[in-house]
Amino acid sequence: MKTISESRCFGGVQGVYTHPSQACQCDMTFGLFLPAEAEHESVPVLWFLSGLTCTHENAMVKAGAQRWAAQAGIALIFPDTSPRGAGVANDDAYDLGQGAGFYVNATEKPWAPHFRMWDYVADELPRLVFNTFPIAEEVQSITGHSMGGHGALTLAMSFPGRYASVSAFAPIAHPTASDWGRKQFAAYLGSDESTWAGHDSTLLMRRFGFDGPVLIDQGTSDQFLDLLKPEALAEAMAARRQGGTLRMQRGYDHSYFFVSSFIEDHLAFHADALNG
Amino acid sequence: MKTISESRCFGGVQGVYTHPSQACQCDMTFGLFLPAEAEHESVPVLWFLSGLTCTHENAMVKAGAQRWAAQAGIALIFPDTSPRGAGVANDDAYDLGQGAGFYVNATEKPWAPHFRMWDYVADELPRLVFNTFPIAEEVQSITGHSMGGHGALTLAMSFPGRYASVSAFAPIAHPTASDWGRKQFAAYLGSDESTWAGHDSTLLMRRFGFDGPVLIDQGTSDQFLDLLKPEALAEAMAARRQGGTLRMQRGYDHSYFFVSSFIEDHLAFHADALNG
Repeated sequence: MKTISESRCFGGVQGVYTHPSQACQCDMTFGLFLPAEAEHESVPVLWFLSGLTCTHENAMVKAGAQRWAAQAGIALIFPDTSPRGAGVANDDAYDLGQGAGFYVNATEKPWAPHFRMWDYVADELPRLVFNTFPIAEEVQSITGHSMGGHGALTLAMSFPGRYASVSAFAPIAHPTASDWGRKQFAAYLGSDESTWAGHDSTLLMRRFGFDGPVLIDQGTSDQFLDLLKPEALAEAMAARRQGGTLRMQRGYDHSYFFVSSFIEDHLAFHADALNG
Repeated sequence: MKTISESRCFGGVQGVYTHPSQACQCDMTFGLFLPAEAEHESVPVLWFLSGLTCTHENAMVKAGAQRWAAQAGIALIFPDTSPRGAGVANDDAYDLGQGAGFYVNATEKPWAPHFRMWDYVADELPRLVFNTFPIAEEVQSITGHSMGGHGALTLAMSFPGRYASVSAFAPIAHPTASDWGRKQFAAYLGSDESTWAGHDSTLLMRRFGFDGPVLIDQGTSDQFLDLLKPEALAEAMAARRQGGTLRMQRGYDHSYFFVSSFIEDHLAFHADALNG
């Protein structure tokens, strides 16, 4: 693992690191914020999964999460959203290939050799950071934005007991019924739609739900509402009697101005679950 | 003036606008945050001038200022750092030409036709925003980062009575004695160093000082400390008996992780002066 940078930030350290990834068969870069408490003890951690076109950097520099993570003594991890590099398959579209991993393990050509973001975020990167940094593996939560909200919700519901809480900002909530999902699942997973169901928050919510608190924020002026389909997840949550909160935030769009406006609430929500 | 985008942000609106500039003889883009109060009254304003290589966007998305501006009911303006475009002179170096206007009016070739950032920030852009938006011209303060800290301090000391308060993050504090300054002033203003003195915060502090509160934050691990020369400004402030606070922040570098760590303090400082 190579240190790209380490900057003091709210009394802790915001680092950026690169490592060779077995899952993705390329070098992968991630951001890690450690609060001051990590100098002398292991700390809880909140994963932040990012959206289409993002790298590890966007949420790290735009979401404003570090202030509240520092206050609560929680680490933050910002993984990249796909494998990258000259030898990695790509597509001209912004929503397929590099920057658009969708947190699945691709089985189809040309994606299968590198696009294993599910394994990377669920397994390889956790092992690396738990072995390297003072982070308490037994105290994790997860959040994300857009495609990353999809990733956070699907991971949380797929590993019961692993995450103390889950939240999302404008998640892609029902990808098997959206152009943000069907196109990518067909490319990465193939035409057998039964393999898609494990990567759809609405379907997972109907079938399994989540064994902890859930918080979802969605802007009412989001330019991608028709692709995100919060109504499907809202219906599934209520039908299942899932404990949780879905807030439709009046006038907010899909940008990081929306995320940063509510990040304080999400950190407080996760801190309750992690430290409570 | 053209609206590029408007996003709800902390209950207010973060906008981005482009307009043809007389001073710079090209289109110029700026960011403006208006708090919710601006829907029914004129609000005070804080200018945020940015550093080398930045556009209007960097501080707008990275500094985290909107939360505290919303809380205090203050508008924020994020101007660009230079004229831009195909017809505008440039240089291969990151610290000269586009992205490096240094908040001066160039008199020398090839810069003179467009590089009039002093007039733009001191005169043209204020007139435009005061005529267009519900901003109270009589209640202004100014801050900035690095080259923008230099701009904020030199403007504040050059227009007594205009700004209620001035602050800076890691300002270029003594450019006439630094490679961040001498190179650019020689290029933009020519070899007669007497024309440079009005653009050096340390020299202005020795001669005039500032008729209001001053707050300066500087990281002790800033990779550019030798170019910034906070010691010169510190000496000048103390020698003049200038009221103000200079904080050397242990371990912080030059990045926006430093700026965002202390932006709350700066907004509180300016809110006291603007609303007090």
